[in-house]
Amino acid sequence: MRVGLTQHACPPTHTVEQNRQTAADMIRDAAAQGAQLVVTQELFDGPYFPQVESDEAFKFAEPIPGKRTQFLCDLAKDLGIFLTGSCFEKRAPGLYHNTSVMIDPSGSIMGIYRKMHIPDDPRFYEKYYFTPGDAPSCGDDYERRGGWKVFDLDIARVRGLGLGVGQTSQAQANSGTQPQTPSPSPQTLKTGLLVCWDQWYPEAARLTALQGAQLICYPTAIGWQPEDDAAEHQRQRDAWVTIQRSHAIANGVFVAAVNRHGREDDITFWGSSFIAAPGGAILAQAPADEDAVLVADCDLLLIDKNRQGWPFLRDRRVDAYAGLLHRYLDGT
Amino acid sequence: MRVGLTQHACPPTHTVEQNRQTAADMIRDAAAQGAQLVVTQELFDGPYFPQVESDEAFKFAEPIPGKRTQFLCDLAKDLGIFLTGSCFEKRAPGLYHNTSVMIDPSGSIMGIYRKMHIPDDPRFYEKYYFTPGDAPSCGDDYERRGGWKVFDLDIARVRGLGLGVGQTSQAQANSGTQPQTPSPSPQTLKTGLLVCWDQWYPEAARLTALQGAQLICYPTAIGWQPEDDAAEHQRQRDAWVTIQRSHAIANGVFVAAVNRHGREDDITFWGSSFIAAPGGAILAQAPADEDAVLVADCDLLLIDKNRQGWPFLRDRRVDAYAGLLHRYLDGT
Repeated sequence: MRVGLTQHACPPTHTVEQNRQTAADMIRDAAAQGAQLVVTQELFDGPYFPQVESDEAFKFAEPIPGKRTQFLCDLAKDLGIFLTGSCFEKRAPGLYHNTSVMIDPSGSIMGIYRKMHIPDDPRFYEKYYFTPGDAPSCGDDYERRGGWKVFDLDIARVRGLGLGVGQTSQAQANSGTQPQTPSPSPQTLKTGLLVCWDQWYPEAARLTALQGAQLICYPTAIGWQPEDDAAEHQRQRDAWVTIQRSHAIANGVFVAAVNRHGREDDITFWGSSFIAAPGGAILAQAPADEDAVLVADCDLLLIDKNRQGWPFLRDRRVDAYAGLLHRYLDGT
Repeated sequence: MRVGLTQHACPPTHTVEQNRQTAADMIRDAAAQGAQLVVTQELFDGPYFPQVESDEAFKFAEPIPGKRTQFLCDLAKDLGIFLTGSCFEKRAPGLYHNTSVMIDPSGSIMGIYRKMHIPDDPRFYEKYYFTPGDAPSCGDDYERRGGWKVFDLDIARVRGLGLGVGQTSQAQANSGTQPQTPSPSPQTLKTGLLVCWDQWYPEAARLTALQGAQLICYPTAIGWQPEDDAAEHQRQRDAWVTIQRSHAIANGVFVAAVNRHGREDDITFWGSSFIAAPGGAILAQAPADEDAVLVADCDLLLIDKNRQGWPFLRDRRVDAYAGLLHRYLDGT
């Protein structure tokens, strides 16, 4: 499975349309390199507007489906790939979410994930804008599944501009000969969607992995503040890498983190997007301050191998985890 | 708060009594360096017997209280410190646990923690020996607290051989003068006990932190196997450091990991004991292959500072975590 990440700046002078053009060029580049799934950065086509609280910024929100998702759907269809994009969703007047959409190679929206954990810190005033996610389909399943989402990506559906399972099958079909061995069964990449602040919560990664996720994607907008010194900057980015690698370790899954870069007002976003393998090894990482199309192969057999070696799922003490459903265990 | 860790080998030629003497010398050294709490490695006074399944090895088990804990209690009392030791506990014929005891400066056992997650992998046949932990006090609290344990260490009770709050107070008392400022209120170090395999489970760290833990201790016995190459060895140790640093990040707590070193039969234990600060920075780390007394100061004010900067506890989605109490979310 080949996964592509698109890391870019959204310069203050750029319009939404210009940012979309940047993203489109990079998504196209990733597809040309054989990516079967491409993941955008958080709120990929706009400035990081939560840096201030202003009702002006609600203009960046759109319904889903809407123009922004149509742009992504057209691109996915044109390239014949799976594409997940991070959007500012207007659900109703006065009700907005930070929402990822998963789009299939026919250009249809498979479903959405609404960011569950919402931060609020100086210059990251997200609680003003985003209602915490709920479950888009609140059926019987809700109690178990909560709002956590995993999508089954049937990779055989990828038409693909580069290498990939889909193209290999086509080559076999065109050769006019019977394959010596049976065709590989269609492969599915079970992809979980989380967003930014979710990345600090082991609960979110675990719940997504327990639904079968083989890959967890974290579109992200995180950066440095001018008050902090270089050592503190380094510590923060190191913590950000470490916590996400820890999800790959604890759950035996691939993790893809996609962060914007560049300075916007007071924040310098630190890029450094990466893909980690089950067990936490970093497969590929982008620089801190450049546009980057990051492509990596995710060998799904590594999941079995990793989890057989360190079988953490076997030994979870589900009989003793009830406290996790409490805010704090201080008796109040 | 000054914390000391004792990392040593348990050479195959050594008796339990010799290993206890090694540990005692190192614990004494840590206390002399001002440690107010000392943490031993896992099963500190014996070989890592779970490398094979043999009923011969049950000879290493003792009741609690018993000779092993009396040895630790005498040492804690003599040094006037808090001491936590990792023991093979015989609870009843045919019922054994991997158990940590927390001992106060008067030499009394404050309580125990029984390892909750038990591994079983080639050369780590712990399920043969250790029954998974339960809650030593199964009252009304059990549903919330499970078997997870946090101990309130009143640091003012530490008599101490080195620097520390206890000694500062003594110095003030001896000076015969009234202090210019009110004495600092007695400080408590809330210490959570987990063991080895628990370290791979974010659930265990979270549940311990939710009970107020400021420091989580992980006595450990983990090492390399001869079939794996140097790159795989490095990957494993890096994952082990990363997952434990991630607990310090996700929970804003100090983490102390204490691992044995040295070759025992087929396993080369990798030492590398360390103490991490809230946010994940490593304060001190021991080498991979030497005896080491590791001492570090844990400034508890860092916990507030870290959690105010990255307030993860504020935003947990306890309404959507029910799935964590399930084995797997596949509908079966």
